[in-house]
Amino acid sequence: MSQPATTLAPGSVGVVETRHLDLPEPVPLDCGRELHPVRVAYETYGTLSPRRDNVVLVCHALSGDAHAAGLSRAPSGGSARDGFGAEGHGKGLGWWDGMIGPGKAFDTDRFFVVSTNLLGGCRGTTGPSSIDPATGEPYGPDFPVITVADMVRTQRAFLDALGIERLAAVAGGSLGGMQALQWAVLYPDQVDAVIPIASTHALHPQGVAWNAIAREAILRDPAWQGGRYHGTGRAPDAGMGIGRMVGHITYLSAPALEVKFGRRLRSGDGPHYTITDPEFEVEGYLRHQAEAFVKRFDANTYLYTSRALTYFDLARQHGGGSLARALEGVSARTLLIAFSSDWLYPPSASEEIAGALRALGKPVELHVIEAPYGHDCFLLEEARQTPVIRRFLAQPVQERGSS
Amino acid sequence: MSQPATTLAPGSVGVVETRHLDLPEPVPLDCGRELHPVRVAYETYGTLSPRRDNVVLVCHALSGDAHAAGLSRAPSGGSARDGFGAEGHGKGLGWWDGMIGPGKAFDTDRFFVVSTNLLGGCRGTTGPSSIDPATGEPYGPDFPVITVADMVRTQRAFLDALGIERLAAVAGGSLGGMQALQWAVLYPDQVDAVIPIASTHALHPQGVAWNAIAREAILRDPAWQGGRYHGTGRAPDAGMGIGRMVGHITYLSAPALEVKFGRRLRSGDGPHYTITDPEFEVEGYLRHQAEAFVKRFDANTYLYTSRALTYFDLARQHGGGSLARALEGVSARTLLIAFSSDWLYPPSASEEIAGALRALGKPVELHVIEAPYGHDCFLLEEARQTPVIRRFLAQPVQERGSS
Repeated sequence: MSQPATTLAPGSVGVVETRHLDLPEPVPLDCGRELHPVRVAYETYGTLSPRRDNVVLVCHALSGDAHAAGLSRAPSGGSARDGFGAEGHGKGLGWWDGMIGPGKAFDTDRFFVVSTNLLGGCRGTTGPSSIDPATGEPYGPDFPVITVADMVRTQRAFLDALGIERLAAVAGGSLGGMQALQWAVLYPDQVDAVIPIASTHALHPQGVAWNAIAREAILRDPAWQGGRYHGTGRAPDAGMGIGRMVGHITYLSAPALEVKFGRRLRSGDGPHYTITDPEFEVEGYLRHQAEAFVKRFDANTYLYTSRALTYFDLARQHGGGSLARALEGVSARTLLIAFSSDWLYPPSASEEIAGALRALGKPVELHVIEAPYGHDCFLLEEARQTPVIRRFLAQPVQERGSS
Repeated sequence: MSQPATTLAPGSVGVVETRHLDLPEPVPLDCGRELHPVRVAYETYGTLSPRRDNVVLVCHALSGDAHAAGLSRAPSGGSARDGFGAEGHGKGLGWWDGMIGPGKAFDTDRFFVVSTNLLGGCRGTTGPSSIDPATGEPYGPDFPVITVADMVRTQRAFLDALGIERLAAVAGGSLGGMQALQWAVLYPDQVDAVIPIASTHALHPQGVAWNAIAREAILRDPAWQGGRYHGTGRAPDAGMGIGRMVGHITYLSAPALEVKFGRRLRSGDGPHYTITDPEFEVEGYLRHQAEAFVKRFDANTYLYTSRALTYFDLARQHGGGSLARALEGVSARTLLIAFSSDWLYPPSASEEIAGALRALGKPVELHVIEAPYGHDCFLLEEARQTPVIRRFLAQPVQERGSS
């Protein structure tokens, strides 16, 4: 059901505003460089408990932003939720609005939910379109190449600045789930629970390839201009549009496309024999998605974020090639959610993580939800994730409360 | 095993040359236009029988050409076989050399095998890079939008010019299989058997989407110049490279990529933190494939051929929406071969064709070969297709021979 943007449904966190915080210290990066200054765009929902023990960090995926829930006071450049997920999703609503709020999966009656735009982003947090203090110009291609660990270090520094030491949970889908896993590995003593959804410990080679193609489409667009397109009046929209099209098809399952579009032609009276115009409904949908995306997203952020998620490889980075060794230090309870039709982040990856944690004697739950929409399920199947997450989150808070 | 290009293995049809034939009449097209003149590039292998009843037409896929077997006298611009299929495939060898020759699946000791470059092609048959007699310039975007049926009408006219009335069989993989099916529907009295391999009666919506993305990448390349890039010194190589990368990944299975590349980095000592250079082996592979392809292929031919194969829809075009009705007139025996790991042309499509033919009481065999490489299996799994095809082809010739 669509929700009018001007009224607030029950369970909404209300009207929210994205705020910004400048980190006091440089952020050290995996590449060896450090970044300073770093500004972080964020939103919070709910109330921080006096003991500061009710903080849930939600992490967004490639194209998301800090606006995870509620109605934005100043909606800018379209929702970070799009594709199938945009339909019936009110304008200005956060990308996980169905998951965050009073009585929802991340229940703001109990939790203080924090959402930040990731490092390298283009929606308020320092990224390649930010001003490089060394030149007074946007970083562009001079922005350091970042990793998921760098994103998490930035979140750690940001929470420090907020006076938050521990996290009751870190949750996110896709790249957001990688951040959750990275938290469990990097800061084992500071996170009670992690909820990686539709995610993986390392993207499979086909996923690496899709991301490479999307980046190539941007790099090969002459308007990219070596990454220094800011201020030129041109941007690699054509290339990023292609990248987004590739992304969209990988986020959906083949059966979902069959149900939604079939082979229906846009014109009912047969093909128009054209090589330049969309003929099939799915072709029109792709063009529309590309156009909507380039209006709100920066191509360099796409490049950097895509690169970071392909690098992510817990076994390589933390276990000398062994996933079990990488996860040895984890002390957070883990809830993994995967979707049966997700072929970009298939359930098998979550099964590998669950298996490794289980073999290490660590508390882990895996739920594979049978759902047809593919990777986008982490945005679409909110109703079915909610009871699983609520039950999982109910446990530690009670334990910690009685201790 | 790789085969030196300078010696001929047993079973080779030998050194061959692509020849050309100008059709005497205009070819009428589905779009309502007609095309004249039309030149057809072709090769033949084996000997035409006195009764002219031993002709097998093999039809190539999107990026193939007339050089299906043997060693080319004048190898031009690289083999039409590439990707996984190029490895161990001798330079100058035809794209289906393992299938065509003495004692092979299409046994040139018995059959006269004919292979043509398809209408719209860029390897000798009239296509968008041919001269438009109306202007004296290459057609470019003025080339009429063609269909698989138009390709088959052109083959029919070409065989007429050769004095060949009947075909013992029409065979092909992918788009080549569509042509085989189209032959069975358009010319039921003139074809004894069809062998569509890794093919479909209508590409599923995800396949339509992949093709749309590949075409968009070409259309959005400024070097495409509205299709009039011939003679400008620029060509949409960047965009066609992206399209080819998309194609390559859809032609392979995810497990095949896992086995072949895994997540191996090109540099063993870890990532180099770059957004512009390939880091993973699969990224380097994609760039290499794109570079090799643009050297030998015309972007407009890619657009037109991709468009034709997405239009192809036997039920819509010949059955008022019913596949059964579309196949009612078929009299050819049908051998369908599909591959378990082919997700672009999945076995389900072949099963639908087999089911419809069976329900109509028509002779049909379906073989789903368990093989891991995806769609490219039709090029790679020659050894396993061979006995199936030989057995199937043995039957009608004996019957016809005894009649």
